[in-house]
Amino acid sequence: MLPMNSQHQFVNQLKPGMTLDQVFLVRDKDLRTTKSGDLYVVCTLTDRTGSLSARMWQASESLFNAIKTEGFLHVKGRCEDYKGALQFIIDACRPVPADKVDLADYMPVTELDVEQMWAELLEILRAVKDKNLRLLIKKFVEDRAFVAAFKKSPAAMQMHHPFLGGLLEHTLNVARAAAALLPLYPKLNADLVLTSAFLHDIGKSAELTSGLSIRYTDRGQLVGHITIAAIWIAEKARLISEETGEDFPPETLDLVQHILLAHHGEHQWGSPKLPAVPEAFVVHYLDNLDAKIWMTTHAVENDADAESNFTPYMRQLETQIYKKSRELQ
Amino acid sequence: MLPMNSQHQFVNQLKPGMTLDQVFLVRDKDLRTTKSGDLYVVCTLTDRTGSLSARMWQASESLFNAIKTEGFLHVKGRCEDYKGALQFIIDACRPVPADKVDLADYMPVTELDVEQMWAELLEILRAVKDKNLRLLIKKFVEDRAFVAAFKKSPAAMQMHHPFLGGLLEHTLNVARAAAALLPLYPKLNADLVLTSAFLHDIGKSAELTSGLSIRYTDRGQLVGHITIAAIWIAEKARLISEETGEDFPPETLDLVQHILLAHHGEHQWGSPKLPAVPEAFVVHYLDNLDAKIWMTTHAVENDADAESNFTPYMRQLETQIYKKSRELQ
Amino acid sequence: MLPMNSQHQFVNQLKPGMTLDQVFLVRDKDLRTTKSGDLYVVCTLTDRTGSLSARMWQASESLFNAIKTEGFLHVKGRCEDYKGALQFIIDACRPVPADKVDLADYMPVTELDVEQMWAELLEILRAVKDKNLRLLIKKFVEDRAFVAAFKKSPAAMQMHHPFLGGLLEHTLNVARAAAALLPLYPKLNADLVLTSAFLHDIGKSAELTSGLSIRYTDRGQLVGHITIAAIWIAEKARLISEETGEDFPPETLDLVQHILLAHHGEHQWGSPKLPAVPEAFVVHYLDNLDAKIWMTTHAVENDADAESNFTPYMRQLETQIYKKSRELQ
Amino acid sequence: MLPMNSQHQFVNQLKPGMTLDQVFLVRDKDLRTTKSGDLYVVCTLTDRTGSLSARMWQASESLFNAIKTEGFLHVKGRCEDYKGALQFIIDACRPVPADKVDLADYMPVTELDVEQMWAELLEILRAVKDKNLRLLIKKFVEDRAFVAAFKKSPAAMQMHHPFLGGLLEHTLNVARAAAALLPLYPKLNADLVLTSAFLHDIGKSAELTSGLSIRYTDRGQLVGHITIAAIWIAEKARLISEETGEDFPPETLDLVQHILLAHHGEHQWGSPKLPAVPEAFVVHYLDNLDAKIWMTTHAVENDADAESNFTPYMRQLETQIYKKSRELQ
Amino acid sequence: MLPMNSQHQFVNQLKPGMTLDQVFLVRDKDLRTTKSGDLYVVCTLTDRTGSLSARMWQASESLFNAIKTEGFLHVKGRCEDYKGALQFIIDACRPVPADKVDLADYMPVTELDVEQMWAELLEILRAVKDKNLRLLIKKFVEDRAFVAAFKKSPAAMQMHHPFLGGLLEHTLNVARAAAALLPLYPKLNADLVLTSAFLHDIGKSAELTSGLSIRYTDRGQLVGHITIAAIWIAEKARLISEETGEDFPPETLDLVQHILLAHHGEHQWGSPKLPAVPEAFVVHYLDNLDAKIWMTTHAVENDADAESNFTPYMRQLETQIYKKSRELQ
Amino acid sequence: MLPMNSQHQFVNQLKPGMTLDQVFLVRDKDLRTTKSGDLYVVCTLTDRTGSLSARMWQASESLFNAIKTEGFLHVKGRCEDYKGALQFIIDACRPVPADKVDLADYMPVTELDVEQMWAELLEILRAVKDKNLRLLIKKFVEDRAFVAAFKKSPAAMQMHHPFLGGLLEHTLNVARAAAALLPLYPKLNADLVLTSAFLHDIGKSAELTSGLSIRYTDRGQLVGHITIAAIWIAEKARLISEETGEDFPPETLDLVQHILLAHHGEHQWGSPKLPAVPEAFVVHYLDNLDAKIWMTTHAVENDADAESNFTPYMRQLETQIYKKSRELQ
Repeated sequence: MLPMNSQHQFVNQLKPGMTLDQVFLVRDKDLRTTKSGDLYVVCTLTDRTGSLSARMWQASESLFNAIKTEGFLHVKGRCEDYKGALQFIIDACRPVPADKVDLADYMPVTELDVEQMWAELLEILRAVKDKNLRLLIKKFVEDRAFVAAFKKSPAAMQMHHPFLGGLLEHTLNVARAAAALLPLYPKLNADLVLTSAFLHDIGKSAELTSGLSIRYTDRGQLVGHITIAAIWIAEKARLISEETGEDFPPETLDLVQHILLAHHGEHQWGSPKLPAVPEAFVVHYLDNLDAKIWMTTHAVENDADAESNFTPYMRQLETQIYKKSRELQ
Repeated sequence: MLPMNSQHQFVNQLKPGMTLDQVFLVRDKDLRTTKSGDLYVVCTLTDRTGSLSARMWQASESLFNAIKTEGFLHVKGRCEDYKGALQFIIDACRPVPADKVDLADYMPVTELDVEQMWAELLEILRAVKDKNLRLLIKKFVEDRAFVAAFKKSPAAMQMHHPFLGGLLEHTLNVARAAAALLPLYPKLNADLVLTSAFLHDIGKSAELTSGLSIRYTDRGQLVGHITIAAIWIAEKARLISEETGEDFPPETLDLVQHILLAHHGEHQWGSPKLPAVPEAFVVHYLDNLDAKIWMTTHAVENDADAESNFTPYMRQLETQIYKKSRELQ
Repeated sequence: MLPMNSQHQFVNQLKPGMTLDQVFLVRDKDLRTTKSGDLYVVCTLTDRTGSLSARMWQASESLFNAIKTEGFLHVKGRCEDYKGALQFIIDACRPVPADKVDLADYMPVTELDVEQMWAELLEILRAVKDKNLRLLIKKFVEDRAFVAAFKKSPAAMQMHHPFLGGLLEHTLNVARAAAALLPLYPKLNADLVLTSAFLHDIGKSAELTSGLSIRYTDRGQLVGHITIAAIWIAEKARLISEETGEDFPPETLDLVQHILLAHHGEHQWGSPKLPAVPEAFVVHYLDNLDAKIWMTTHAVENDADAESNFTPYMRQLETQIYKKSRELQ
Repeated sequence: MLPMNSQHQFVNQLKPGMTLDQVFLVRDKDLRTTKSGDLYVVCTLTDRTGSLSARMWQASESLFNAIKTEGFLHVKGRCEDYKGALQFIIDACRPVPADKVDLADYMPVTELDVEQMWAELLEILRAVKDKNLRLLIKKFVEDRAFVAAFKKSPAAMQMHHPFLGGLLEHTLNVARAAAALLPLYPKLNADLVLTSAFLHDIGKSAELTSGLSIRYTDRGQLVGHITIAAIWIAEKARLISEETGEDFPPETLDLVQHILLAHHGEHQWGSPKLPAVPEAFVVHYLDNLDAKIWMTTHAVENDADAESNFTPYMRQLETQIYKKSRELQ
Repeated sequence: MLPMNSQHQFVNQLKPGMTLDQVFLVRDKDLRTTKSGDLYVVCTLTDRTGSLSARMWQASESLFNAIKTEGFLHVKGRCEDYKGALQFIIDACRPVPADKVDLADYMPVTELDVEQMWAELLEILRAVKDKNLRLLIKKFVEDRAFVAAFKKSPAAMQMHHPFLGGLLEHTLNVARAAAALLPLYPKLNADLVLTSAFLHDIGKSAELTSGLSIRYTDRGQLVGHITIAAIWIAEKARLISEETGEDFPPETLDLVQHILLAHHGEHQWGSPKLPAVPEAFVVHYLDNLDAKIWMTTHAVENDADAESNFTPYMRQLETQIYKKSRELQ
Repeated sequence: MLPMNSQHQFVNQLKPGMTLDQVFLVRDKDLRTTKSGDLYVVCTLTDRTGSLSARMWQASESLFNAIKTEGFLHVKGRCEDYKGALQFIIDACRPVPADKVDLADYMPVTELDVEQMWAELLEILRAVKDKNLRLLIKKFVEDRAFVAAFKKSPAAMQMHHPFLGGLLEHTLNVARAAAALLPLYPKLNADLVLTSAFLHDIGKSAELTSGLSIRYTDRGQLVGHITIAAIWIAEKARLISEETGEDFPPETLDLVQHILLAHHGEHQWGSPKLPAVPEAFVVHYLDNLDAKIWMTTHAVENDADAESNFTPYMRQLETQIYKKSRELQ
């Protein structure tokens, strides 16, 4: 019974009145009593595109216990508008083992090929000529635990690229943009820009968890990705120095750490230092630009209201986004 | 007498102890009396790289009258340090007619070929496909008075590219950078970005004078380049409409004006609107990036103090600039 | 059946426990199912003073279809408190054609006589002596489409005078205040102050819609009323110039546009220029003063809570407003 | 010898090359030695319009001793430009007793009739009807020491009306403006506005000295005019209460003190409270408007540079002021 | 029936699923109708640790009338999670007279002994040697009405020590900290620091009510505790002066008032003056430190979510608080 | 010849008219020509309290060469006022070898006993009980290079304790204050507070040079003391971990680094993290308090103007400091 629909309807495409017959990931559940004494279940159903409040009337305690938080649930029912938000009324449900679902539907994850992105990033970094910067990059690239975490990490909790692989996707974008602009600015130290483009957000792989839900780690919250990365770079420089028997040049270390510390551009965004070399401005602006392009195009593409020419107000941008710029004419 | 040195020593390269025998542009002059009753002249000598305070002892009133403000003067003498600033002691001098000097040595002017830059800019704009944006660009390109002013204009009074032709140089840089980045962001409206890259600062050709000294015009001071340009664009759209007999599409006009109005990125920098389409962020960040690269590399290249690894404090950047980033190792 | 009460009870005067028998404008509607499977309707009822959430139990699909969004509905039922907000329980209802209601009860509209206000504004402007400013005023006054839109426009979406005719009401207030103050400051250019008082907010007639609901237009959102008005003034000056065969004096144009651009007083409020003539400060402060008087007296008069001496916190003023200042002793 | 010129040339009108033969007030003096061992005097000469650095060569110790700081000195000599600033070379000088000069030339003082202004202010306040506010006004008006200080006090050290009598001049302006606007806003408590217009800056008579030089008093610096005035009002209310045998109504006291505390409008300008009644906004904006009109018209009228259409940059206004707004056409 | 549990379960310790049989203070109540026409009661139950939304199904009008707002109610029922917040379902209830309950359970009140704290504060102040400061302290200590209010007052509405006696508790903490630090900084005027530590927040006893609910008084809202206290100090100084027949030294008065006016440290926090003596910094930082320690430790101790290492986001501190700092290892 | 005065007159005590016969440290020197062709020397003389511009007339090139920059010079001559600044006229001079002077007179250096301060700091840290924090402290205390640098380092370039040993003096003050306050706040983690008090500014020993002049190092400028210290702590934790064979507890490391990163309290002061544990507030406020007490008492003690009750305006404190608070009565 409850045969699976061929296609999962994603949360961000649901509308009042639609009926569903498919699997969701359960976040929260609660058993409540109506005034007449009947039990009912309230729970939150999610997939990688969002979450949905649901209730199931005429529930029993055993049915409630069968539903597992952080487990998968096949549900049948329909969508309603409830006080301006969407609500799902479950008519029937049964648990589904994790190995029967396509996890990628439930975890927010990059739509691009991770290995291909990683290869392209390495290809771009191959242009770096400076011996010490090459050693530094190599130390990170050969650190398996780091690379594994880096490939899985989101770029942020919500702001931009908030999905598994998002950090790599964003980093590659910044590195590509840097590679595209560097020929136009021959006075810049291209090696420094490319290396910093790679390293600028690596601390996020320790700042954020990269499981079913994206959260700050304790260390991310207390120390932050900028300082975490500065420490990692110091540590790699120490290892290089131990291997080569020579000091890692302090100017090189200072500059890479400086660009990292300054890449948020202003104190108020958590940068303990302001950009003090032209290369730092390149990383700062290209980082910001990629984030802003993601935020605005994502907001436009995911806006449910077909009637309005604008998205809802976006607090971080202090404006609504106009949705028609792409399709002039 | 006073045979001309083969090569003009520029103000930004002078050091205490150097002797000079060459022509400067005179800005200010004053005749003063020493305690013992002798007359002496105090004046300011300039070339395109800066200005220099000078004095000539044992002067006479007729000599003083022979020196012309905004005129050229051949001087012979030597440089001294006076209270931390450079001072020039004139031993002998004579006026020189303007047609005997290379004006380019005395007016700050782009070092690049203006016509070549203009041609390259037009080449980049040729990529624009949208019919209305093409018409808009064409209207400006065919406006001879506008083009003449645009080619001569500085990009700013002091901040960046503050020299004749600086506006074109900066605009070309932004357009080049946009052209380089657009292939990486296929979701953007490339036509809109390129058109706006061209138009974003055109109002500066009416905001600033472009003669021997760069100053705000009254209209520049009272109305500002952003609003001036928005008005020009409205005017060109009206002319197109009159010619074609069709309304210039209001969405297109709104978007081009919006990106222009928002290109300073924040209210505090004089933008009456905040960026509300992804294309506006591209123009905002590439504009800013080109300005910051100019400011920092210019500060590094023109810093006289060979001993320090940092330039003096730059108020606009709230930091000193580190001078060694280009030459790692 | 459902005979109409002689008097409409406005939303801002409703209290829990009141029964109603009258017409509202319907904004949203939704058909939902109770746990027991019964259908019920949830909708929003409005008049010009506010909106009210309503539900009707034991509904049918045909009844639901009879209710029209943006249509008028005669309802009978009673008001309740639901979680601190007012809710209306509909016992019976039937649609009412628009021509049977007094539209002024449902659209927020000025309580003053529009033509009388317009006449008074023109009377005040008659004091302007400067030939060019008179021509400029005339151009706007003779532009029928402009005048029609100006008379209907609200002054803002919510902040102050957010109703049809509000722009005229506010503009007249500012002009009156200017006329009252000018004799006290004979050094000011009175013509410039009066002209700018008239023109300072005219762009709002294109920034906001003026129908049943007040919203930003796309152009209002992307370009904004300040720039719209600056462009209109440039356009009128061009037309004057074409008619007179003489240049409209650039100083006059610069000044009128400057005062307009600076009338929000600070960059953070969207002014691209800061006030740079004394006349600009007059317009800025009188504009602000009229808005603040409206906001505070409106908040006091519409505060439902008779027990408290203060209104709720007003975010834009960063304070609560004390309601007893008018009635000392 | 040294016969007095019929007319004092004021400091703000001096130009390089002018010769003078008149009296100044001496601020500082210093005796120095030239390299050749000769003594010379350096001193500062002032009148009510500004100050001027001066030197006298070939001085003697007895001559130096004859010059008195804060004394008057008749000088003969000429003005020079020295490093961009004006300098005066004294050829001859002699002390002048204070009773031989017109003190009004040396102390900045209002050009208006103090008693007439005071009478007009009282006339305006006669419109106040509220019994308690009348008692409060009366308490201040009958306090002779207060009235004497109030009439002499400047309104600020430098910002606006920085001269003896300036506080009264400014207060009268605000009261006049309030009286002019109140008929337009009948919902306001006019008594409260007029009383507060009178009292809003009274604390300045204790915050600033009103002698030859205007400085902060210690109490002005440590406690400030806003709190000083709040305390005075509390004290007057207590006295009224003692006389009448009835409590001064606390709501009235609260409101007058509130408007006073809030009249700077924002915390950053030293207001401990933000305006929370409409009447507070009236006092805040009219106070600000009068100050800004003074600052801008004063800057325009006192600008020495006839060539420029703009005054120098004014830090408090964050802009230069355009000087041609009064004389359009 | 409904025998009282021996121990009151406080609101901040309740969890879904718990059953209760105890007394609460009722804040709000409302009678509503279900769709099926049944009546039910919605009310808010509180004790000194927080508030709880409750409903009672199958209610009658007489039962509703028996429940008194601001009265005590013995309830029996159980806690549920409702949309993420706790809700209480009342099965049975009856009113309880105020004299049958321990009021301290229902009003937020210090857990410390008020008289003992007061005695310790006086003991600390005994160290003050300066005659005039001693007189000033004495005037306040002997003012019975003041002392009674001071002992009962909270220190704030919500931020820190928001309970009866909180002002004394906070003041004592600041005085203790000052007494502990003063030996380390012998250059400070210890008498001034201790006196100001005592007086810095006294105005709060008139700014806030100290009954069953803590609210701003009208005077607190309009005038604020800082100015209220400055006025009180002026008044006490006047009384001392009348008694002693000597002026209270103005420097002493200025300084005590200055430290009071400056103790919020920045204009944006409502201080009309910035700290201008070292003693003012001591009071400012120790005041702030005590408040921040209370806020953070209170947030940690009252956080219900045992799973998270962080409290929810605290808007005033712009961060979440880490809960594990006390228990390292 | 030139017998040494028994006592060095320090620069901050010099006044116009004083004659001197003593040794200074030379910073800059320059040889210039008078109008009459005579040579003269301009140089800067310094001691640990400040610097003084000097000139010597009738100089020769050999004399000029004998004076060494960064060398010591015995001078004889007198002080003059020159344009409001003090100037010294050298009548005679001769170089003095460094070993003939008391270096402490020329380098700004703590007046306290460094070893005694260090011992007291260690004594305070002995109270730390937590095993891991003890290990961490030990690692730093046993690092000889670190301790040597720490003892010599200033606490800042100018703001507070800007002299050799100033870092230790400031650190000890903060540790003492923490030790004094901790008994009052038993809920705090005292070990964490004391450890962080010790470590909070250690990075300054690498941020600033500690030779004859105090300057930022390149690393200090580019990376900053906060990040430098965070890296050092990570490095020490790694070494501990290697020695003990156990992981250094990550919570402990996170917390110590967090308090360090947050100790400037706000993003704008360069803290990449805001305080998120109560212990972080303690370090932040006590650090700030010690700095502010130094700045204000130092300004009062070093103010040359005996006539004024206030120091000059201090930009960092946005106010002048009142000088009479210590000596009430």
